[in-house]
Amino acid sequence: MQRTETTQHVIVPAGHGRAVRIVAGQTARIIDVAGGQVGDVFAFRAEDPREFHSASHTRARTDRLFPAAGEPFVTNRRREILTLVADDSPGLHDMLVPACDPARYAQLGAPGHRSCAQNLAEVLAEHGITVETTPQPINVFMNVPVDAGRITWGAATTAAGDSITFRAETDCLLVVSACPQDIVGINSAGLTDLAIEVGSPAG
Amino acid sequence: MQRTETTQHVIVPAGHGRAVRIVAGQTARIIDVAGGQVGDVFAFRAEDPREFHSASHTRARTDRLFPAAGEPFVTNRRREILTLVADDSPGLHDMLVPACDPARYAQLGAPGHRSCAQNLAEVLAEHGITVETTPQPINVFMNVPVDAGRITWGAATTAAGDSITFRAETDCLLVVSACPQDIVGINSAGLTDLAIEVGSPAG
Repeated sequence: MQRTETTQHVIVPAGHGRAVRIVAGQTARIIDVAGGQVGDVFAFRAEDPREFHSASHTRARTDRLFPAAGEPFVTNRRREILTLVADDSPGLHDMLVPACDPARYAQLGAPGHRSCAQNLAEVLAEHGITVETTPQPINVFMNVPVDAGRITWGAATTAAGDSITFRAETDCLLVVSACPQDIVGINSAGLTDLAIEVGSPAG
Repeated sequence: MQRTETTQHVIVPAGHGRAVRIVAGQTARIIDVAGGQVGDVFAFRAEDPREFHSASHTRARTDRLFPAAGEPFVTNRRREILTLVADDSPGLHDMLVPACDPARYAQLGAPGHRSCAQNLAEVLAEHGITVETTPQPINVFMNVPVDAGRITWGAATTAAGDSITFRAETDCLLVVSACPQDIVGINSAGLTDLAIEVGSPAG
């Protein structure tokens, strides 16, 4: 990977969401500060947020269920928006299940619980953006094994300081939610912070 | 399955889309008339089309990659909208890849080609509905094998007359597109018609 210098460092508090604007060529390293914490990652094209990362279109592009280093992520208009440039984690990232949302927690007996879908909505509102539908996220550090067509909700296997790095292929708003799920055991050490480190090509 | 009487029979012409309104308890049998033809199926809640079948939410509900008889399909608000009540086909139905769309055909060197996304938009327009984003469809009769996290675009294995039957769990608009894809070999015998047979509980 190209050498970069850090130009922005953002803490994503446990259970909450944050956004960074990144321009084409910049990188965003998402760090699992304490380990065992899932992050829901969304990417919207800066010039038109109706274009956003689409999990199903990315699967059709990469012919993979899950992200892999070197592979692109494409939008609902099939254009590249991110590339996974480095994976310093066990390599488990889900792209099958949706963001947790108010309906999910109501069904789990916890109405009013914080959710990744609401974290996204709150963060987008700060940028003057509303979306009709929550896009399916890239669930970084989320362990969803697939066996014979069945999926399992495993616990995150990341250690403190593990990270995954995306490069922007177009100017975009990247939203990261530190998943507040504490009923289903996907976050393996309670709810903890994530961090986003924005890097620009050095030189 | 409960005995039903056919109350509506609709031909979905090759490469085009059609819709049926079905009320809770009615069934929609989708028939592969000549065999080897993929159908993209979308379902919108009648009283509010901003609620629609969501592939990612259904995966989270069923813990399966692909549909199976007896299983529900849920909306972006996690409510049941359809149930797969009978499968008289080889049982291969995709729920991983998106509808084909203008961007897909442009990338395949065929700009302006008909697409399932446009078929959906045309049919919805006839019902006074516009959607900002094309929901990910249930791709009936589509053969997308998964092996070690990689997906393949196989040819449909259905024979003439094979069918799959959904029951509506809420009043909905069901849209079926006879997929016009003739560049990637998913439709195994050229582009052919589908049919929709709406059934009501016999009484």
